[in-house]
This record gives sequence, C-alpha cells and structure tokens, in this order.
Amino acid sequence: MAQKKRTIEEKSMWDDARQMLRKAERENIETVWDRLEYQTPHCTFCELGLTCKNCIMGPCRISPKGGKRPLGVCGADGDVIVARNFGRFVAGGAAAHSDHGRDCLEALHAVAEGETEDYEIKDEAKLLRIAAELGVTVEGRTVLDVAKDLVTVFFDDFSSRKEGIAFLCRVPEKRKEVWENLGIIPRGVDREVVEMMHRTHMGCDNDAPNTMLHCARTCLADGWGGSMIATEISDILFGTPMPMKSKVNLGVLKDDQVNILVHGHNPIVSEKILEAVNDPEMVALAKEKGAAGINLVGLCCTGNELMMRKGIPMAGNHLMTELAIITGAVEMIIVDYQCIMPSLVTIGKCYHTKMITTADKAKFTGAEHIRFAMDNGREQAWKVVKMAIERYDLRDQRRVDIPGEPVDLISGFSNEAIIGALGGTPTPLIDAIKAGKIRGVVGIVGCNNPKMQHDHCNVTLARELIKKDILVLATGCVTTALGKAELLLPESKEQAGDGLKEICGALGIPPVLHMGSCVDNARILELCALLANELGVDIADLPVGASSPEWYSEKAAAIGTYAVASGIYTHLGLPPNILGSEVVTDLALKEFDDLLGACFVVEPDPVKAAELLDERIKLRRRGLGLSE
Amino acid sequence: MAQKKRTIEEKSMWDDARQMLRKAERENIETVWDRLEYQTPHCTFCELGLTCKNCIMGPCRISPKGGKRPLGVCGADGDVIVARNFGRFVAGGAAAHSDHGRDCLEALHAVAEGETEDYEIKDEAKLLRIAAELGVTVEGRTVLDVAKDLVTVFFDDFSSRKEGIAFLCRVPEKRKEVWENLGIIPRGVDREVVEMMHRTHMGCDNDAPNTMLHCARTCLADGWGGSMIATEISDILFGTPMPMKSKVNLGVLKDDQVNILVHGHNPIVSEKILEAVNDPEMVALAKEKGAAGINLVGLCCTGNELMMRKGIPMAGNHLMTELAIITGAVEMIIVDYQCIMPSLVTIGKCYHTKMITTADKAKFTGAEHIRFAMDNGREQAWKVVKMAIERYDLRDQRRVDIPGEPVDLISGFSNEAIIGALGGTPTPLIDAIKAGKIRGVVGIVGCNNPKMQHDHCNVTLARELIKKDILVLATGCVTTALGKAELLLPESKEQAGDGLKEICGALGIPPVLHMGSCVDNARILELCALLANELGVDIADLPVGASSPEWYSEKAAAIGTYAVASGIYTHLGLPPNILGSEVVTDLALKEFDDLLGACFVVEPDPVKAAELLDERIKLRRRGLGLSE
Repeated sequence: MAQKKRTIEEKSMWDDARQMLRKAERENIETVWDRLEYQTPHCTFCELGLTCKNCIMGPCRISPKGGKRPLGVCGADGDVIVARNFGRFVAGGAAAHSDHGRDCLEALHAVAEGETEDYEIKDEAKLLRIAAELGVTVEGRTVLDVAKDLVTVFFDDFSSRKEGIAFLCRVPEKRKEVWENLGIIPRGVDREVVEMMHRTHMGCDNDAPNTMLHCARTCLADGWGGSMIATEISDILFGTPMPMKSKVNLGVLKDDQVNILVHGHNPIVSEKILEAVNDPEMVALAKEKGAAGINLVGLCCTGNELMMRKGIPMAGNHLMTELAIITGAVEMIIVDYQCIMPSLVTIGKCYHTKMITTADKAKFTGAEHIRFAMDNGREQAWKVVKMAIERYDLRDQRRVDIPGEPVDLISGFSNEAIIGALGGTPTPLIDAIKAGKIRGVVGIVGCNNPKMQHDHCNVTLARELIKKDILVLATGCVTTALGKAELLLPESKEQAGDGLKEICGALGIPPVLHMGSCVDNARILELCALLANELGVDIADLPVGASSPEWYSEKAAAIGTYAVASGIYTHLGLPPNILGSEVVTDLALKEFDDLLGACFVVEPDPVKAAELLDERIKLRRRGLGLSE
Repeated sequence: MAQKKRTIEEKSMWDDARQMLRKAERENIETVWDRLEYQTPHCTFCELGLTCKNCIMGPCRISPKGGKRPLGVCGADGDVIVARNFGRFVAGGAAAHSDHGRDCLEALHAVAEGETEDYEIKDEAKLLRIAAELGVTVEGRTVLDVAKDLVTVFFDDFSSRKEGIAFLCRVPEKRKEVWENLGIIPRGVDREVVEMMHRTHMGCDNDAPNTMLHCARTCLADGWGGSMIATEISDILFGTPMPMKSKVNLGVLKDDQVNILVHGHNPIVSEKILEAVNDPEMVALAKEKGAAGINLVGLCCTGNELMMRKGIPMAGNHLMTELAIITGAVEMIIVDYQCIMPSLVTIGKCYHTKMITTADKAKFTGAEHIRFAMDNGREQAWKVVKMAIERYDLRDQRRVDIPGEPVDLISGFSNEAIIGALGGTPTPLIDAIKAGKIRGVVGIVGCNNPKMQHDHCNVTLARELIKKDILVLATGCVTTALGKAELLLPESKEQAGDGLKEICGALGIPPVLHMGSCVDNARILELCALLANELGVDIADLPVGASSPEWYSEKAAAIGTYAVASGIYTHLGLPPNILGSEVVTDLALKEFDDLLGACFVVEPDPVKAAELLDERIKLRRRGLGLSE
C-alpha cells in the first residue's frame, strides 16, 4: 500500500512529538517517518510473506494465486513459505525475550554464587515464594542456598532434558490438556527456538499447519518460560513493583540538568546507572559543570522497568526515542538491547548526544561500547555517568527545545500489588467480574509503528474499553501512550463505565493498570491463570482479551502468539506478513479458535477493535453463565 | 542474473540424470530445474542480502550504494541488514545440524536409561574412548553407566551453564587462543543460535562485524558441538564406519524388486528400515507379491549414513532425488528431515510412489505421517516396509525406466578407519605431508545447486586437486558425485599426481576418501585438530582447505563458516547473499584471514578454484618450512 506524504499532525497525536517533528524538519534531521516514506511502497512479495531466502537455490518469490511462479525452487508453496517466515519471525521474538531472561538468570546466578557485589537479592520473600512454588525446599535454608537451587531450576528450563518448563505449574489443567493434545507443551526455552530454525530449513517442515503449531509452542516457551523468568528474577533482584507515582512525556527532560536517557529492556544496566546518578559525588560533579543536577529518564522498556520500581520518569515510547534526542538537551543515551533504532547514533551526532552501548550482543557502529558484566556493573555505571556529566559543556543551549509539561501517572501494578490492593486475594476481582462491574479484562501491549498515527490507536482502544467496563492492563510502549493520555491516574475512572468506575473508586486505582515492560506480559499470563484456577476453568473460558494496536516487533508477534496459545483472544492493529497464505491466515484468524480456544483478529480501527473485544467478552461471560 | 533456458546436457553432467530429465519432459513432470527457470531472475535486493523482514515497520529494501533507499525504517544500513540476514541464515544451518545431534543424544539417552529395546550401543569401545576423552570415569564401570554420564556431558552442551562446549578439548591451544581473543568460544549449542536470533531482532546488534563474529561463534557451536555430537553418537549407536564397498547412481534401483528410498539425514529411522527390509518374513512377503526381493537404497545424507556403515547403495544426491522417483520404479520414499524437496510428494503422486514422513518436526502436506519415536522405531519400520511391499502391485512397469549401470565405490573412511589404515598413528600421513607426497588435504563437501551444471564443479575440482597431490576428503552430496566419477575407487590413483598415487598405492586407498554425511564434517575438523596437535601448530597453519563447490543450503553456509573459524581456507562455488555489503563481503573474503587465519574465496570455475586452494596450500607449506 502506498504511503502518501503525511502531515506532522497525522504522524503523531501528541504535541511533544509534533513540536520535535517540526524541529527535525527545520534542522533537516531524518526520522523514522521519513525513512518509512522512502521505503514505501514495500515489496508486495515480502509484505505477503511470499519471499523465501532460506537457501541459495533462490531467493524465491511466490506469485499470489494464479501467477507464473507458483512454487519455490525446492517446490515449497506459498503456504509453506509464509508459515516458515512467520516461524522465524516469532522465533526472533521468543529468542529476544528468552535471551533477556537468561541474562537475568546469569545475574541471579552470580549473586547466589557470591561472584558479584554489584547485585543483590532485593525481594527475598518473592525468591522464597517462587522457589517453593517450583518445588525447591525452602524451610531452614539460607536465602542464597535457595537461590542456588532456583537458579538450577531455571537453567534447566534453558536445557533439553525436560518434558516441560517449570512454570507449567501455573498453567490451568484444562489449558495443559489442550497443549498436550496438540503436542505443543513447551519443553525448553532454547530448544523450541532452535527446533523452529531447524524446521524452517529447506526440506524439513513442509506443512504449514504443523509449522504454525510449533509457532505456538515456541511462543509458549517464551511467555511461560523466558519472559516469565525475566520478570520474576527482575523482581527478585530489583524489587517487586508497587504502585508509585511518576511522570511522562518529553517534558521530563530538564534544560538545566545533565540529561541521561536509558533505553532498551533489561534493568541490569539501568539500575546501576540510577545508583550512579544518585551518588552525591556525581551530583556535585554535575554542579561543578554548571548543571543543576543529573536527570535520569527512561525510554521504552528499560524506562518501564525503572519507572515501575523506582518512579523514574519516562521520556517516551518507541517513536519518541529519536525525538528525545532532537530536544538537543540529552548528554547521553545508554542502551542495552532490543528496539533501539540505529538512527539514534546518527541523530546523536547531530547534537552533542553520546550513545553508549553496554551489551556485547548489541553493538552499534558509531557508538562507544562500554561493556557491562556481572562483576563490573557499578564501576562501569560510574564511568559512563561521569562521561555524561563531562558532555554538559558541549550542549548548545540555543538548540535546546523541551516541549510541554510532564503528565503524572501511577505505575507499578505487579500481580502482587494488584492482589495486595484487593486485600490479599483475587476474590474481590472475581466477584466484580461475576457481578458485571468489571465485565472483562484486556491487556493492551506492545509498540508503536510509524505506519499508524503514533499512539492514536493505543489510546482510543483503551478509552473505548474502559467505557465498556473493561479493565485495561498496559505494558510496554503502550504504557507511555496511556500515561500521556492521563489514563494511568485514578481520576480517569470518570472516563470509565459505571461499574468499573465504582470499583476503581473503591480501590483508589486507575481503570488502566500499568503492569510493566514487554517481558512483563508474563504477569498478565500469571494473572489469567490465577483467575482461571480460582474459577476452575480454562483461560480460554475467561472474559479476557489482548491487543497490540500499534505493534511493530517480532517480540510483539511472539507475545500475541503465546496469548492466543494460552487461550486469549488477541487483537492486532496491523497484520503480520502472512496474508499471502490462505491456510496460514485462516489458522491465525479462525482455526486457532477451534484448536486453541482463541485466535487473532486484525482491525486497524480502534473503535471497531473495542467492539470485537467486547463481543468476545460477552461470549465468554455467557459461557460462564454471567450477564453479558 | 538471468538464467537462460538450458539444455538437458547443461543441466547435469550425468547420463542417468539426463535420461530421467528427458523422461520428465516427456511425461510433463516439473523438476527443480523448471522451477529455477521461472524463479529466475531472482529479486536483486534479496540476492544481495539487502531486504529485511525482521519487523513490520518494513519490509525494507536497501538500494545498493547511492540509491534512494539508503536505510531501513529503523535506520539500519545495508551492512547491518546483510550481516543480520547472514546471521539468521547460518543460524538455520547450525540449528538443523544441532537439532539432529540432539535427536541422536535422546536416542543414546533412551538406550542408557533402558527406555528402548529398539536401539543399542554398537560400538562400546568408541563410547568408552569418547567418555574418557571428555573426562567421564570409565574404569570399573558398566558401559551403560558410562553412557549415562556421557549423555549428561552432551546435554550440558545444549544448556546455558557452560563457558565452553565439551569437544573444545580437541581444539589446538593456539586455535582456542584465537577464539578467546575474539570472544567467540562457543558456550552452548542452543545458546549461540538463540543469541543470534536475539541479536538480529530490530535494535540489537547493529554493527556488522560484531554480528559476523557471532556467526563464527554460532557455527563453531555447530561444528565442534551439535554436528560432532551427532557424528560420535551415530557411531556409538550404529557402528563406526570402516572401508566398505557399495554402489552408486540410479542404476542401483531394481526393476524386479520393491524399491524403497530413504532420504534425509539421521540414521535413527533408516537403520530400522534396513532391519525390516532384511527380515526374511518381509522378503517372503515381497516375493508373494511377485517381486524378486526388497531393494533399499539411499539418497542424500541418510544414504551416506547407510552406505558408510552398511554398504547400502546410493541412488543419488540432492538433484537426483526427484529423478529417482521419475524412474517409476519406487514404491516408497521414507524421509526424516532436511534437504527433502517438497516436490517429491507431488512427483510421487505422478507415479505410485508413496512418501512417508517420520519426524513430527518435518511433516509434508500430502505425505503420510508415521511417527518414529525412540520406543517404536522397530514397530513403525516393519509397518512402513509392509506398506511399501503392498504398493508393488500398483507399479506400472511400462513407465519404469532405470538408467545405466551402478558404479562401484569404497566408502566408510572414518578417522578411526584412516588412522587404522595408517597403522594406528597419524605419523605416516604427517610424514607423507612433510615429504610433499601428499602436499595437502582438502575437504570437498556439500550439496548440489541447480544454478550450476549438476556435479560438474564437484567432480572437476576433485580431479584437479588429486592431480596436484592433494588428498581429497568427501562428505555429503559431493560423495555421490565423486563416486559416480569413479574417484572413490583405489584405481583412481592413476588420476593423481605421483606422490599421492604412491601413497594410495601403498595403502590401497583411493585418493578421495569418503568420510560421511554433512554432520560428519566434524570428522574433518577432528582430523585437522589431530594433525595440528601432532605438529604443535594451529589448524590455520596446516596445508589444508575446504570447498563447497555446488552448495545450496544454510547448513553448508554454517559448515563453511565453522571451517573458516577453525582456520581452514574455504572455497565456495557460489556466493552467499552478502554481496550487498562491502563490509560483510570484505570480512568474509579478506579480513577473516587476519582475524581467524582463514577466509572464504568464491570462484565458480573449478580449475581456478583448485589453483586458489593450491596457492593456499603452498603458502602454508612454506610457513611450516616444507617444500611447496
């Protein structure tokens, strides 16, 4: 589809974004929207999923039905090729989350073995609770001893010796039966990803439905494995999030302070940066340089991790990352991995903004690499913060333009926080659902995509849902959108339907709860499992849904797939590149419903999407014998 | 590059292939060459490696230098995109080999735990030797107990707890230092593949050289990990290959017998089929049906596995798989996984040939799936062989055309066999190298690719090399080519240079030694390590080389990459899809030489390729102070 030149207003719904887009235009700086323009129209074959580069007898492209190229050189048809491509696509997403989980695990391992003083167990109670849940003996043992055993349990999830990952213990029995019958119980986190890469090699899996089922299995290994491990260990090492105030939008940057952005996903680096920034010596150094202080702000999921645990303000989501630098006020951007546009290096060089990479697996040509390891996190953090302070001199205040005022929000609704707010049991939530005050629950998750007006779909969908008494759970880049829309404040209950408004009022919570970063969608899985187990039903029986209105990444596709495979009806604002195959498209949009009890639905219009989710919630409420 | 319509003679150098191509033409059957024709010209962007489908802000395509699309939507440039694509390409290959290795490991595990009676430890001595090599206590223990510990060692190689895989113990110290300095010691087989998938997600590794180094690491985990495990366990379970006569080409099919083809890679299924075929009751059943017997023949690497251990004849390599069915004489083709053209199902349906799939991870739409597991291999094998016999009735003898006479060959040169032939020590080989009688050793490995005249480059290169007193080691589909060219017979020493001829004559071996299937390239690594260790040098110092003249698959790219990373200069007849990036191409063709002591060279002309390999061998001989 050709993308016509859009106005700045069409590009983003936000004033802070628009102001920076105007600045970018004046200063002749290329942004993601410009690149989308010259990359449009996209290759139709690639967009339909009909190109294959998996061997060099090709590359091949399959003509949509009736064309002169019905098969690839090997003989694979469009269905097989689309399924293989989708398989590798979600494998990329599952791998990203799971490798992040492995990094968290290595940190916990280093702590348990006494190999680092830079990290520690912050939430001992959670460690002990999870250890016990996973069958580790807890009684009469030291926390570190228990940690060692828990580490072994998790490492085993990354191995090939098990028939099922550890957190299957959380999955309702009826759901496990569905998986068992389809042969998609996730065995090991890495194993499923590697098997997907094997299956999609030339001459292996040449049956699209079979490949699609392994997509489900691979993604389940992410959701209930890699991601869940990442979430739980992050809580153990850095504290379980509790409701906490923070602020959002580019206005959180300060024109008289050293501004440091942290961007990426894993809290392991950013938590150390936070410590360094809070060191009075560092603050004094900044003041020596003429700054009023040091201002650490987050972007993307690293931002979510710091916001929900420490209340650190959030500068913006995916499409704001370039614009944050364009304020001209950023001394340094420190990144770990995932969703970091390589253009940030280039844009940084248009100003005085230095980009620091920290993970050996994610270097950026043109950025400076300062390797963070388990045993040098503190040392490196102080080093880079010092470097940032020293760059304050280089800032050209005439080019600084920080738009708008920050918006307040409440973050930090972990399951522990939610259950805590409910008085220690999910019963009040279940009662509210039964009574129809909360008609259902929808997780709105994921990204931005420059193909859509920035955050419009994210925000509109949330508003529409809460109007219908549907509680919204937000993670990832959606958080920033909903925060800027003031939906993460208790006051926004006024926008909710009467039932939801009443409950929010009683509990003093917003109708939209921020549950964390992208890996934290595992919290939503856990919550769904908990509700299903309480009710003695399958997750697929619950009046719940998921949506990723503006997704762009392979991780979002993996999340969507594990949501569907877990029995959660899932809306996408944009289709994945599967439309070249009727077989694959039918599976995703229809047949998965029979096989898995849930399917995808694609709808770019957020009002219609809300209706579709509402329809599904009505159906499930009727199924449970509840009022619609 | 546009592919003009080629004559049948231009398509393959072999008479059996040409005869079947003519039959296909008469019978209006589409083959891989026809599909290549309509898939040509290929998409230039894909061919250059410049398309990216790793997120849905795209798909993107980068204009070769100076074009109007310099960057992807995220900001990734052509170098990053080419490196990411190559990363996923070799990850696919490494995953395929390694997942095959895991399947072998699960079989050994089942045997060790007494969970199956269908498999057993055939080569106890090898099991004990490898166990001891890997630090498992052997003295005074039962074979099964030792096996259990060995299984654990190998499972650990698929986990994330180790800093290095087990067979690093075979790697020369100087080589390990190279890897250590570059940070590419392979840690775990699955881990490196999954990390590659993570790195190539949007916004992770955006530095082409860094990604290319991880390509090396991932492939080393394949060569010294997954593949080596596959090879060693296959020997333990099915016997270590020893020199053995067999036959090759389509003439091995028999017009008066039930013909069963086995195709794929893992001997776990095909070894059971072989047992069933040899059962007198089954033979009697075939005779009842009017057949003279049951004729089991191999294709591709499953064929190699059976040929080198059991002398089972080989019908053909990659480009012969369709043509074997076109003989009209095949009752059944039984496949496991990898390199199995999906077109075989369709072509089978043009005759009476039934295709049976056996691995849950490799189903083919239209084929019948009969699942082989550790505990039902025997039962299923008898079942499918019976099905094959019952199809003999359906054969239309008027459509049967089996071309040519089989060619004799000698197979089965495992390292144990080679060292055995040398009198139990590599010294005679080293002495022959020192004396310049054998000037060097080159492994010719890999596939066919319909873009090249079938087997011409494979055969010509081997002939050119032995003329230059270079010993050739063959694996994979190259084996069949060299077998058909009568190069796997001791008599072919007459085509070798004087020095090589003398050695071959003295030892009674051919100048081209068949070392096995594709995973068995691990045998070549082991042999190189053994020679380097004996000489106290790095593998990169040896007068050795590798070549994959007609490669097509991701596995071949992984093999080439682990060869280069192991210090072995490697020729490719066709380039991988990397030419869109100067940075990546320079690394592969030049800078790897500085970093790793070896690099790739691409040359379609086999005579020139032989000269290039010879030049490198001269250089290395001079380096060791030997005559050129």
